[in-house]
Amino acid sequence: MGYGIDNLPYASVIGADGRRFAAVRYGDQVLDLGLVDPGLFADGSLDGFLAAGPPTWGRVRAATAALLGSDALQLVPVDDVTPVLGFTVSDYVDFYACEHHAANAGRIFRPAGDPLPPSWKHLPIGYHGRSGSVVASGSAVRRPSGVLGPGRFGPSVRLDFEAELAFVVGVPGSRIPVDAADEHVFGVCLLNDWSARDIQGFESVPLGPFLGKSFATSISPWITPVAALAGVRIPARQDPSPVEPLRDDRVRHGLHIDLEVRINGQPVSRPPFAQMYWTYAQMLAHLTSNGAAVRTGDVFASGTVSGAEPGQRGCLLELTWNGTEPLHLDDGSTREWLHDGDEVVITATAGDITLGEVSGEIIPG
Amino acid sequence: MGYGIDNLPYASVIGADGRRFAAVRYGDQVLDLGLVDPGLFADGSLDGFLAAGPPTWGRVRAATAALLGSDALQLVPVDDVTPVLGFTVSDYVDFYACEHHAANAGRIFRPAGDPLPPSWKHLPIGYHGRSGSVVASGSAVRRPSGVLGPGRFGPSVRLDFEAELAFVVGVPGSRIPVDAADEHVFGVCLLNDWSARDIQGFESVPLGPFLGKSFATSISPWITPVAALAGVRIPARQDPSPVEPLRDDRVRHGLHIDLEVRINGQPVSRPPFAQMYWTYAQMLAHLTSNGAAVRTGDVFASGTVSGAEPGQRGCLLELTWNGTEPLHLDDGSTREWLHDGDEVVITATAGDITLGEVSGEIIPG
Repeated sequence: MGYGIDNLPYASVIGADGRRFAAVRYGDQVLDLGLVDPGLFADGSLDGFLAAGPPTWGRVRAATAALLGSDALQLVPVDDVTPVLGFTVSDYVDFYACEHHAANAGRIFRPAGDPLPPSWKHLPIGYHGRSGSVVASGSAVRRPSGVLGPGRFGPSVRLDFEAELAFVVGVPGSRIPVDAADEHVFGVCLLNDWSARDIQGFESVPLGPFLGKSFATSISPWITPVAALAGVRIPARQDPSPVEPLRDDRVRHGLHIDLEVRINGQPVSRPPFAQMYWTYAQMLAHLTSNGAAVRTGDVFASGTVSGAEPGQRGCLLELTWNGTEPLHLDDGSTREWLHDGDEVVITATAGDITLGEVSGEIIPG
Repeated sequence: MGYGIDNLPYASVIGADGRRFAAVRYGDQVLDLGLVDPGLFADGSLDGFLAAGPPTWGRVRAATAALLGSDALQLVPVDDVTPVLGFTVSDYVDFYACEHHAANAGRIFRPAGDPLPPSWKHLPIGYHGRSGSVVASGSAVRRPSGVLGPGRFGPSVRLDFEAELAFVVGVPGSRIPVDAADEHVFGVCLLNDWSARDIQGFESVPLGPFLGKSFATSISPWITPVAALAGVRIPARQDPSPVEPLRDDRVRHGLHIDLEVRINGQPVSRPPFAQMYWTYAQMLAHLTSNGAAVRTGDVFASGTVSGAEPGQRGCLLELTWNGTEPLHLDDGSTREWLHDGDEVVITATAGDITLGEVSGEIIPG
């Protein structure tokens, strides 16, 4: 299972002959989308397809499924291709939509105060990240350097991952009502928002994270279409109910998706996306509520996904409680933060569907 | 003067026949750069030119000046063309590099504390803005709506401008030393970082400004090349001296540029860029110091330019001290914040050189 007929995620891939083409994954093979619609995928990217909107998304998905049902196909083993980013990233926004994560961060950094910032339950807090630093799963992540304190510049010694789900915008729009989200959002993928906690901690007042995040953001090149997630939609509820443009109680925009984070092959966390507070429809409605337009290729991410239990926390900041409670790995080593050579892999399942993993290995700065 | 042979700013323009072409402004006329290098400017944009780097920038500038010195030219009156954004904006970063502005903001929002945040003199604080919201001078700016407080959604009632200088990156790079800035930065233009102070104030803890800024950022389409600014270079000095990758005492990267802000034609401020604390070379070095790469078309802005005197403050937040000291206009009206119908125009001179203005009129939300 995992990559059956109900999934069919999209990417661009590089074939053994060096040719780049748009592809759908089916089981352990990929289908060249040029066989489905030669014109739409002529440039080997998903850009035109993403912009085309739901009718085209539906038509291509149906035609792909029909073609895969025939027996005359020339499929390519997935191991014979290299998936790459299939679309041009326009703007990248990262939200902070998980209450468990935000509250844990509050308890760590503001132990005397309210765990949640004053606005947290009134709007999905977010910020713009660096679109030029978005890289495909498998890219090595060089340990960043930065200003760690007054007079101190050097490699980060508090390097972290953040397990997130990202949403890829197909159809441009502005002031998008929550109920119209699926007319604009094409699909989802896993994202690792690598974070240098020392750089971030020193720089972030008052304008937020900047170089502590901007060195690399890894995403899976495989985009699972929203259409594949019908079976895992769940209600999401906010208390108190937010202002009208952010109310989302008519369509099920919660998603029952289970993430897993492994460090060097060992599972260290199982974050449940079902426990997220704000929905992707609310994030998109908020993002565009001031009149800002989204473009084809915009990516917005959920922020760290963490559950209520300690083993469900989606970053080392929470898992090690800011480095004070080291994680014990099976090889006898411990981790407050990531070491050079560590490989972090985030996987996820949405019912019977597997999302494309996002992986990255830390290399020395 | 203003647009003489020593200036020669670049834009894309739309001619009377609807054709888009890359152009240089000379006096009250423009020259079609297709006459200088048909291949380089074939698509009517500056993208290829920006990416080509200093040798090409120098060659085209010299060839343009030579051509303008001949008398067989077909120049077009500047009033017969419409300047538009000449390049694709990649990532947009906004800094906070003016000590007067940052200290005034600190006095307003944190009257009991140190006016400057702890890291302010150790690195140029900045954040990522929304590249998709960057619009050309002259574009109307629709009053944004947003969450103004718990349960309150509506049009901003604290709408502000911010007078800034922006830098346009030509040549990609990473970990760019301060002394190498001019191998990467192509030119400068004026920028208005429109800000909704009520939206910004409620949303900004802990991740910084988001929707309070992302509705619109106006820039002049006319990019004055750094090569034109040789005569206004001045030393800039930071005390204490920053960490080595940010030290900038070997090349003069300060710029003696005088800004002026007018509301509905009336001058309300004259911000002196010469008083800025951090230089553009330091901003670029910092931005790339963690390994992040800049791309052709990246824009980074200075943050609000304010001088030591009250009449030199570059935004209404400071000019009206957060709305408590209204600005009196000649027509008898007052302004705490911008009204619908207000037009804000920012102009600047760099010695004998005039920068392209950036203007915008507020229209109802």
